[in-house]
Amino acid sequence: MQTTDTVRDILRNYEGETPGVKANLARMLMAGKLGGTGKMIILPVDQGFEHGPARSFAPNPEGYDPHYHYQLAIDAGLNAFAAPLGMIEAGADSFAGQIPTILKCNSANSLMSGTAGKNQAVTASVDDALRLGCSAIGFTIYPGSDCALDMFEEIVEMRKEAAAKGVATVIWSYPRGEALDKDGETAIDIAAYAAQIAALIGAHVIKIKLSTDHLSLPEAKKVYEAENIDISTQAARVKHCVQSAFGGRRIMVFSGGAKKGADSVYDDARAIRDGGGNGSIIGRNSFQRPREEALEMLGKLQDIYLGRG
Amino acid sequence: MQTTDTVRDILRNYEGETPGVKANLARMLMAGKLGGTGKMIILPVDQGFEHGPARSFAPNPEGYDPHYHYQLAIDAGLNAFAAPLGMIEAGADSFAGQIPTILKCNSANSLMSGTAGKNQAVTASVDDALRLGCSAIGFTIYPGSDCALDMFEEIVEMRKEAAAKGVATVIWSYPRGEALDKDGETAIDIAAYAAQIAALIGAHVIKIKLSTDHLSLPEAKKVYEAENIDISTQAARVKHCVQSAFGGRRIMVFSGGAKKGADSVYDDARAIRDGGGNGSIIGRNSFQRPREEALEMLGKLQDIYLGRG
Amino acid sequence: MQTTDTVRDILRNYEGETPGVKANLARMLMAGKLGGTGKMIILPVDQGFEHGPARSFAPNPEGYDPHYHYQLAIDAGLNAFAAPLGMIEAGADSFAGQIPTILKCNSANSLMSGTAGKNQAVTASVDDALRLGCSAIGFTIYPGSDCALDMFEEIVEMRKEAAAKGVATVIWSYPRGEALDKDGETAIDIAAYAAQIAALIGAHVIKIKLSTDHLSLPEAKKVYEAENIDISTQAARVKHCVQSAFGGRRIMVFSGGAKKGADSVYDDARAIRDGGGNGSIIGRNSFQRPREEALEMLGKLQDIYLGRG
Amino acid sequence: MQTTDTVRDILRNYEGETPGVKANLARMLMAGKLGGTGKMIILPVDQGFEHGPARSFAPNPEGYDPHYHYQLAIDAGLNAFAAPLGMIEAGADSFAGQIPTILKCNSANSLMSGTAGKNQAVTASVDDALRLGCSAIGFTIYPGSDCALDMFEEIVEMRKEAAAKGVATVIWSYPRGEALDKDGETAIDIAAYAAQIAALIGAHVIKIKLSTDHLSLPEAKKVYEAENIDISTQAARVKHCVQSAFGGRRIMVFSGGAKKGADSVYDDARAIRDGGGNGSIIGRNSFQRPREEALEMLGKLQDIYLGRG
Amino acid sequence: MQTTDTVRDILRNYEGETPGVKANLARMLMAGKLGGTGKMIILPVDQGFEHGPARSFAPNPEGYDPHYHYQLAIDAGLNAFAAPLGMIEAGADSFAGQIPTILKCNSANSLMSGTAGKNQAVTASVDDALRLGCSAIGFTIYPGSDCALDMFEEIVEMRKEAAAKGVATVIWSYPRGEALDKDGETAIDIAAYAAQIAALIGAHVIKIKLSTDHLSLPEAKKVYEAENIDISTQAARVKHCVQSAFGGRRIMVFSGGAKKGADSVYDDARAIRDGGGNGSIIGRNSFQRPREEALEMLGKLQDIYLGRG
Repeated sequence: MQTTDTVRDILRNYEGETPGVKANLARMLMAGKLGGTGKMIILPVDQGFEHGPARSFAPNPEGYDPHYHYQLAIDAGLNAFAAPLGMIEAGADSFAGQIPTILKCNSANSLMSGTAGKNQAVTASVDDALRLGCSAIGFTIYPGSDCALDMFEEIVEMRKEAAAKGVATVIWSYPRGEALDKDGETAIDIAAYAAQIAALIGAHVIKIKLSTDHLSLPEAKKVYEAENIDISTQAARVKHCVQSAFGGRRIMVFSGGAKKGADSVYDDARAIRDGGGNGSIIGRNSFQRPREEALEMLGKLQDIYLGRG
Repeated sequence: MQTTDTVRDILRNYEGETPGVKANLARMLMAGKLGGTGKMIILPVDQGFEHGPARSFAPNPEGYDPHYHYQLAIDAGLNAFAAPLGMIEAGADSFAGQIPTILKCNSANSLMSGTAGKNQAVTASVDDALRLGCSAIGFTIYPGSDCALDMFEEIVEMRKEAAAKGVATVIWSYPRGEALDKDGETAIDIAAYAAQIAALIGAHVIKIKLSTDHLSLPEAKKVYEAENIDISTQAARVKHCVQSAFGGRRIMVFSGGAKKGADSVYDDARAIRDGGGNGSIIGRNSFQRPREEALEMLGKLQDIYLGRG
Repeated sequence: MQTTDTVRDILRNYEGETPGVKANLARMLMAGKLGGTGKMIILPVDQGFEHGPARSFAPNPEGYDPHYHYQLAIDAGLNAFAAPLGMIEAGADSFAGQIPTILKCNSANSLMSGTAGKNQAVTASVDDALRLGCSAIGFTIYPGSDCALDMFEEIVEMRKEAAAKGVATVIWSYPRGEALDKDGETAIDIAAYAAQIAALIGAHVIKIKLSTDHLSLPEAKKVYEAENIDISTQAARVKHCVQSAFGGRRIMVFSGGAKKGADSVYDDARAIRDGGGNGSIIGRNSFQRPREEALEMLGKLQDIYLGRG
Repeated sequence: MQTTDTVRDILRNYEGETPGVKANLARMLMAGKLGGTGKMIILPVDQGFEHGPARSFAPNPEGYDPHYHYQLAIDAGLNAFAAPLGMIEAGADSFAGQIPTILKCNSANSLMSGTAGKNQAVTASVDDALRLGCSAIGFTIYPGSDCALDMFEEIVEMRKEAAAKGVATVIWSYPRGEALDKDGETAIDIAAYAAQIAALIGAHVIKIKLSTDHLSLPEAKKVYEAENIDISTQAARVKHCVQSAFGGRRIMVFSGGAKKGADSVYDDARAIRDGGGNGSIIGRNSFQRPREEALEMLGKLQDIYLGRG
Repeated sequence: MQTTDTVRDILRNYEGETPGVKANLARMLMAGKLGGTGKMIILPVDQGFEHGPARSFAPNPEGYDPHYHYQLAIDAGLNAFAAPLGMIEAGADSFAGQIPTILKCNSANSLMSGTAGKNQAVTASVDDALRLGCSAIGFTIYPGSDCALDMFEEIVEMRKEAAAKGVATVIWSYPRGEALDKDGETAIDIAAYAAQIAALIGAHVIKIKLSTDHLSLPEAKKVYEAENIDISTQAARVKHCVQSAFGGRRIMVFSGGAKKGADSVYDDARAIRDGGGNGSIIGRNSFQRPREEALEMLGKLQDIYLGRG
């Protein structure tokens, strides 16, 4: 499949990167209904690890089966499917070559006490990604955690190996931990900082959360106010985050969080689109809905990214 | 020995796995009186490590000798014998090829203080398993412990090596630690979560404990109640746990705990069978009984799994 | 380009070092408007990591784009451009061969709590430096931190690998941590000590901060007073620091800190020059100014080092 | 030298072990005056590390010289000489081939504060053992210490390497640490447990201390009483410990502790013999006595093991 | 240069050691004015790391330049020059082959807080020693520190590599840390213990401090008194320390500490000589004096060791 000009423009930003990584970025950017537009929708299913199986799949019990998610992502024409080792393996053969996959290589869980540290376990490797035919590895960092430096070092090592072996790297940059209060986790200055850190440590695709107009760090607050940085709307905040990742030289997608009303999901997508983000990574809001409803929602989201909604 | 359709169906769930691993899973599934049925009974003897020799073997002192357990498992027609390094070695030559063995690769003990951490020591390696002709490695994780992330990382590494070398992986997923109170360790939401984690980090065979109808995590409790998940009977809870491990795509066996009345052991097995579990892993309830009594009990359990009890 | 006598004299101090390292030191010393004089001005852009993107780039938003900094350093005729992995990569191809680059291999950030330790994450490797065509690796140590010994060990390992592969090593020696109070971080005895440590662990280029005439360690204070060491002017303090790094056998550059008035920047440079330092590493004071203003300032600084200001 | 039936019977218990390990076990079992009987006396000299030189050697200052101990062990016709790296090296050439040696690979010392952890430093390697012609490595574990899991993991790794290279492993299993009070360290239930752990992690020769009739763990105490386990005499306790190490399938020797009256040493040996232990490891009680007195005592101990005392 | 009988006698104590190590020990023992006598004077210059540059070099500012120390050691006819990586490198080419060098491979500093641990950073490697043509590596251990076990393990590893590559090992055994009070650091029982530990972990040359007649450990004190060990004079204490390192089978040198009166330095040397020590390692007392004065003092010390003073 020939890449589009848009995709080639995006790839050109990954200077000096291996052809293997560029090919895998292209593979994701060219897949599905948004293929070639530079926009992406990714289905992530690591909630069974993060929140447990019942909280994740009981609302739509077909989701207990990994095949359900593969098929949903394929039928919806998404760009990629992301999941931890066991779930990717459980359909790796049945769905080989049908949709790009992202091997989520670390995970936290809801059985961690207050003394356990804000951290994740590395549960898969680059060689696993290769063996399973994945286009990318996925990795979460927690800027703000006392474990953050260790997490940075882990993904820096893995990313180096992955890139050398032609596998792209997606970083989930989720502020969390001892340095942040609850509001800080979603504050715009922190979100932009999280995007910058992910870019600096070498992410090819950056995944962050949508943010609020709260400003958390006093030193940053001064600058936002002095420089009149527009953070008044979600689209403005998306734009600021995209700018914070090398002025738009890195693919950035946004996650939606817990299941919520469809309109709210659509509004988010419009803000991402209008702010110049590359797309959505949308888990519970798709797989916790009945399949037909999910397909409809995902189709509508694609329309939004195609400028038709 | 030609595998049965049932076994081939089970193996088909291990997509993309090495032929070596599948062969070893087949070896265990085809062994003994339950061979070919998809059901398994495993004899585990690591209690000498966990509780000390007298508490484990004094009730039936023949058990001090590792050969006793090998012979018991063979004579009872079990599917596999699992034990730590020293015990497997002590009969590795005498019983070579007579029964599939599982090398238990980490162990805790009862001499650990309150400050020692809820953890286990890695006491054997994949190369030990190969050298000793084992079909699988066994490894315990403690979801809920502050050491859990480290334990996940250890088995993820070992499993990768094991699978590449054709050895299967059995994970004992035993909730325990700082994040859990006593009731939580056996609560159904936690048990299902433990099964899910084991599946996601790549277990080929998952071993969990039978659970109670207690719900431990508040966020989970809400969902169980909202979705009316049936947890009223042991069979229902087994079914929920099986579902929580990729909708039944992974072999799941259940442990019985401390020695108890025979009827109770049989009831457990019926619940496992009726809930769709693959079988029992039964230690103290077999080897702490006199040999003839143990053989009778194991025979009866096999009958239950064969649908005759 | 033939090296000058001045540069050859400097290189001669690096006894027994690999030709590769010497070639890269020469490359930096011979580049730009100060080429061949033994003086250097380096543009470092790691503030996005250290302080966040808005605090770093909002005052001059062109700086969000890595290409801006590459181009600024080239157009200003600087000796080298230093930045973390992602930023170096983002222009590695476009600007290949146009200016020597220094890959900053570790970084801290402003999202670290009081319990996180005074430390940095290693975010790039020697092989990254080779792959990206860099002349040197850059690494920060925090003498005075409880993490200092670990940081020393990290750079000692990396430096060994780098030198063997022909890459030079620049050490940012920034006193900070549990052993120091605020005044101590910039005290002259501590600054000289930081220079000495960097030299002893093998730095080819030492970067320290300009210091105050404060004396922090009581044992040192006694000696400074007994021996009448001149620390009364910035130039005298620069001279003492240069002496403290093997009597001038190591290249030493000084950082300027937060953005401030131009006159103050020029005064700093004159003190560095008069004290025998090799130059300035100047980040926020260049890239936070409008481009034309920055070019003018950098030109004036070069004039100072050339003895014309 | 042809091995005796007794020795061959012992070796047969090491199923699947490498011929190299068996040859080295045979070497120790066939050496000296007890050669071929399945009984052993070993001279260990690591007290200089554990207690310091003066406390160890001042009572008989010839012992400061490593050669003294080699010669004492040879002249007394012992089965092996065990010591840390430096001491083994100091006579490795002079006494090459004259007596089997055991390289003690970890050591504690009496300069460890209450916060240092109950641990030992690894001070020698398997390759050192090979280079120095040793028949075995020796390693201490502290069941009951918060460092115990780490210690288990260290010896498991070393033992694997040693066995692959044909070197046997002797484990000193000495209960100690946060989980135990003073009485617990020598309690019979703990001693038996220590023997079981050493066997399970792969010791070829197990060295434990003689125990008291104290029962330390409440859960164990119940079982000892319920099952009427005989722990009334030292011989009974030795028997129970031997049984606890795979029903006698592992060589077990007992240490005597600080210097004491000769009669007491003989009584210990008779208890070890009558309980089915394989022998004594006797340090201070031999080398702190004048040489002639020591030789006489060791001769008498050999007589006891030969059934003549 | 043919080795003398004295030197050959000393080398004979290093049983089984590699010819490379013996050659390097010979190189140091045969160098300078004491060459061939079995006595040694070593110039160590790591005080810039330990105490900072001004405290070390301001009293004689020529010492800021590493070449000064190389030349001083050569002109004084010393046996070896010891320093950290950067300082050795700074003269490695100019002085190649003119004097044996010892690469000091770990260092502490005076910027370590009370919570930093009593430890040193490893700042050089065996390969650095080879590359720089050094005869030995030098390494400090702190018996009594909570980091001591780690330090032992570090040097044990390095020593193994060094010996295999033909490089000798000098251990600075300096009691210090949580287990010791101030008097304990220089107590004779502790000094002798420190010598014993260094010998047991494989030092070829042991460097300790001169001690006082204080006895620190109660258990040791009892033995010193019961056995009437002579610790009344410095010579007696040197003799006891030499005895404590395998009865004199290891080269032992003594350090002198801070700058003091010349007579006191001479008295120390006489005590070392009379007690059977191998010599002095003398830093601040030489390089903090004016060059001519230092040369005179070093000459006089050599006379003392030659029995002429």
